[in-house]
Amino acid sequence: MNSVGVVTPQRVTFGAPITLKGGVTLPGFELVYETYGELNAEGSNAVLVCHALSGSHHVAGIYADEPKNVGWWDNLVGPGKPLDTNRFFVVGVNNLGGCYGSTGPMSLNPASGKPYGADFPVVTVEDWVAAQARLADHLGINCWAAVVGGSLGGMQAMEWTLQFPDRIRHALVIASAPKLSAQNIAFNELARQAILSDPDFHGGHYYEHGVVPVNGLRLARMVGHITYLSDDQMGEKFGRELKNDKLSYGYGVDFQIESYLRYQGDRFTTYFDANTYLITTKALDYFDPARDYEGDLQAALARAKANFFVASFSTDWRFAPERSQEIVYALMHNGRDVSYAEIECSAGHDSFLLDDAHYHAVLGAYLDRIET
Amino acid sequence: MNSVGVVTPQRVTFGAPITLKGGVTLPGFELVYETYGELNAEGSNAVLVCHALSGSHHVAGIYADEPKNVGWWDNLVGPGKPLDTNRFFVVGVNNLGGCYGSTGPMSLNPASGKPYGADFPVVTVEDWVAAQARLADHLGINCWAAVVGGSLGGMQAMEWTLQFPDRIRHALVIASAPKLSAQNIAFNELARQAILSDPDFHGGHYYEHGVVPVNGLRLARMVGHITYLSDDQMGEKFGRELKNDKLSYGYGVDFQIESYLRYQGDRFTTYFDANTYLITTKALDYFDPARDYEGDLQAALARAKANFFVASFSTDWRFAPERSQEIVYALMHNGRDVSYAEIECSAGHDSFLLDDAHYHAVLGAYLDRIET
Repeated sequence: MNSVGVVTPQRVTFGAPITLKGGVTLPGFELVYETYGELNAEGSNAVLVCHALSGSHHVAGIYADEPKNVGWWDNLVGPGKPLDTNRFFVVGVNNLGGCYGSTGPMSLNPASGKPYGADFPVVTVEDWVAAQARLADHLGINCWAAVVGGSLGGMQAMEWTLQFPDRIRHALVIASAPKLSAQNIAFNELARQAILSDPDFHGGHYYEHGVVPVNGLRLARMVGHITYLSDDQMGEKFGRELKNDKLSYGYGVDFQIESYLRYQGDRFTTYFDANTYLITTKALDYFDPARDYEGDLQAALARAKANFFVASFSTDWRFAPERSQEIVYALMHNGRDVSYAEIECSAGHDSFLLDDAHYHAVLGAYLDRIET
Repeated sequence: MNSVGVVTPQRVTFGAPITLKGGVTLPGFELVYETYGELNAEGSNAVLVCHALSGSHHVAGIYADEPKNVGWWDNLVGPGKPLDTNRFFVVGVNNLGGCYGSTGPMSLNPASGKPYGADFPVVTVEDWVAAQARLADHLGINCWAAVVGGSLGGMQAMEWTLQFPDRIRHALVIASAPKLSAQNIAFNELARQAILSDPDFHGGHYYEHGVVPVNGLRLARMVGHITYLSDDQMGEKFGRELKNDKLSYGYGVDFQIESYLRYQGDRFTTYFDANTYLITTKALDYFDPARDYEGDLQAALARAKANFFVASFSTDWRFAPERSQEIVYALMHNGRDVSYAEIECSAGHDSFLLDDAHYHAVLGAYLDRIET
């Protein structure tokens, strides 16, 4: 099935301190990553895949001991797939502050000997990219052929073109936005308040109490899922279908959509960390390259040298096509080489994770043209 | 200022039992209501105003001891206002299951001698209208000149035309829908889960514990406010404005929108009851007159005899104009007399509460033509 097959996560430790955007200096840090394909002799075929809110370094393939744990973008990455591992050396990385093995809130704080918990600093998209650059150094990658990401991942691709304009040839920014809207921030704040107000949060030090803020994290994930699906798709998929034959006249599950949200919420609490969720929503809220340019996105993107592929989805109401177009227009005004595709797809924001034929065709066509 | 001035809530006790849609029989119940204007000798000038999720019987005017407690639709109801109390006898009522004095979860359960709490049954729009009909009997109103409501209130106006087709001459259905969409239900479910999972909820018996599920109710209200405002208006009103000069790199308030949501959420917990919130969201979810007609709204509305005024707002994404149009088309196919206005207004779902000039002009023009 064109899979990259069994993969093994790797870990790298960076001993040099890193000073984050918020002013905190970490004495060093670890990143967990995976690679697929082979780096060529020139080091010119490397592609970084950046994850979004709940993603990880496990982009493609499976684990030997977990054959059902398929990478989150496995439909895109593999031999003969749009991001073709016969041509490209693909790197997935768990970001700083994450909960899949990279240094984050669950890591031991050398200052206390206990997990960081709430003491782990808020990180930003800029910080992630700075950390990813160290990984690139470690892997001997001077310049990425491409950096690819959807949603928050797309913001990282964009940030690469600004922070390291000479280290990225192509930025693929999918289902993303140049900054969050007030409504986007509102949904993040709702999710954060659900976590922060959970009595089991314990000010972010719940590890020490042997509990997890299950209720808050569950609610946060429900908020997320509502914004990931389009109204249309939710209607098609669930409509007003009842879970059982009759209305319950109580607070159990009446409608299928309720069952779906509860299931997704419950499941999330078994594998994701609440402190990482908080950090990541803040990274989303804070991303705004135009902030230092009085809101002028064109000026903010002036230092980008990469070519861009920007894609949006017709039913995405989290980051609607208009948001992608803001990026496209700013780049065009700067005379950048930019390709834009607006994909008709009913699946809302989540479309970027699906293997819609038209979407994969245009994305694959763009990637095929990248020289390695 | 064309106010109805100082008003006094009244209370009526109905001794006869009422059997609710869910099968539970209440031995009797009380309703709290207010009236403005004078009922004419023929009893032909009465207008019922139905409240939405968090509204009450206090539609217009102020209280002698609370001069700042202005009715929630005071801009619409009063002498010389669109719903003119010089012509109409206007009635506002707190619905069954409410928390403003009518029989509800905070009332004493005669079976236990303690507040009903979670034992108060789920009520429906049908139940509310059945209870409102008893109030009409009590007031000597055989047939309403009009029943008016926005959002959930509009559903009650619609239900009047179905349950009592001969007791309503005009139904004014504003910013409403013939039933909730899956996404609408999803937001309600999110709000409910926030309340139900709050440890201070105590299975709905929090009164006995001397606490209130503040965190859950606060989150529920935040969900509500996000859906009441349009994305555009939120952007205009708050954008990405910072509360303070700098980003905090923490979980305090960074953006104005966060401050707004927290404030609205906090305030709500000081005056609204969580059990009532649960009941009311269920009433919303369950409303679906077409359910017994295999989804055929036209068939469901066939027994309505009233004339209709339907209005929607261009930026309302909770109940978008398309949802109002479903009602309009079904009525037109049934040969009913129906006026429809789609109002350009940036304020989203909340528009129905505002005194937008165009909105009040068309609504007033319709009301002016009603014979009394």
